[in-house]
Amino acid sequence: MGMRGFLVISNSARTSSDFSLNDLPGAGRMDVMCRCVNSVFLTSHGMRKDATAYLLLLGPPDPPKLIRMEGSELKYLGPDERNIGGLIRKALGVKVERGERMTSPGIYVSKIHLEELFEMLSDEWDIYYLREDGEDIRNVGLEDGSLFVLGDQNGLTEDQERIVEKFAKATVSVSPLSLHSDHCIIIAHAELDRRSHDEGSSA
Amino acid sequence: MGMRGFLVISNSARTSSDFSLNDLPGAGRMDVMCRCVNSVFLTSHGMRKDATAYLLLLGPPDPPKLIRMEGSELKYLGPDERNIGGLIRKALGVKVERGERMTSPGIYVSKIHLEELFEMLSDEWDIYYLREDGEDIRNVGLEDGSLFVLGDQNGLTEDQERIVEKFAKATVSVSPLSLHSDHCIIIAHAELDRRSHDEGSSA
Repeated sequence: MGMRGFLVISNSARTSSDFSLNDLPGAGRMDVMCRCVNSVFLTSHGMRKDATAYLLLLGPPDPPKLIRMEGSELKYLGPDERNIGGLIRKALGVKVERGERMTSPGIYVSKIHLEELFEMLSDEWDIYYLREDGEDIRNVGLEDGSLFVLGDQNGLTEDQERIVEKFAKATVSVSPLSLHSDHCIIIAHAELDRRSHDEGSSA
Repeated sequence: MGMRGFLVISNSARTSSDFSLNDLPGAGRMDVMCRCVNSVFLTSHGMRKDATAYLLLLGPPDPPKLIRMEGSELKYLGPDERNIGGLIRKALGVKVERGERMTSPGIYVSKIHLEELFEMLSDEWDIYYLREDGEDIRNVGLEDGSLFVLGDQNGLTEDQERIVEKFAKATVSVSPLSLHSDHCIIIAHAELDRRSHDEGSSA
């Protein structure tokens, strides 16, 4: 169970760099995005090099903005919201029209719409939609190269869900409760870590 | 699976209120404590009223300080580190010698040493030590009233471990990897939520 990805879609998160690190919640709940990035990458003694995070930010003033982060290339990522918020803000401060620009080691920004993004992702990943009413993750056969799609605190619109469901192999649930996105990422990681470890032990 | 508790012990976290919310990592890694509190209490649509957090802070200048938070009494808890850091700072700003003082609804501060704390906790809770090399949590029979003990980013000293192990029913592991304390709390919650839900379904 190597490569794994997480795409978090936020309809509120700010898409320019004109926000304060002292008020991440005020930047369209950028604090949620920061905690998701922490969840995707950090373990106690280092970074998950096999993980990729995609943040699709759709708040004002310049949506869409996609921030892609590659665990294998990230040089330094502090665990705290303020540090991660600084890296996101730096990415949002770089002007981008076509293509993708690297704004820090392992961090890339681009402008891409949801459906186009999924067309790109589906070439590379097996896509799963993480939602409370999905199939229990413990019963889903997940392969190397699974990408999990999550909404932010307000979830996705119906139109967005239709696109996600068009590309997703399945809708998967990590808990009987409705949990914050960053917590869902932790539970998905834990399930994959366990399988990866069991495969390793029996090999 | 109702009541559950988490005790996080930090040998570095600051024990006075003279720190800046702009630099929580600089306050003896107070950011770690903030993320643990988020993990203990927050779900998507509210608060875990059945949860209790104990933070035992042992950094300078005035150790020990115990902050107890009761989910059933907390009035408002933002999910972001800065908000939680503000509540912790407020608790640390209140002078306390004997007994316990409430500093916000559901938040209490006191001065108590590790062994004395465990003597008190063991009357009320079944204590489990969360550590990477413990027994797999999925195989441990956990009752209502389980309390999990975690170290911070630097873990516990040998002397502290001896005390924890004296009071703990078992050492329990939530992952084959070494994970941050706040992530471990999420995985422990997820396991308890699942059992609670299964019990509910079969009842």
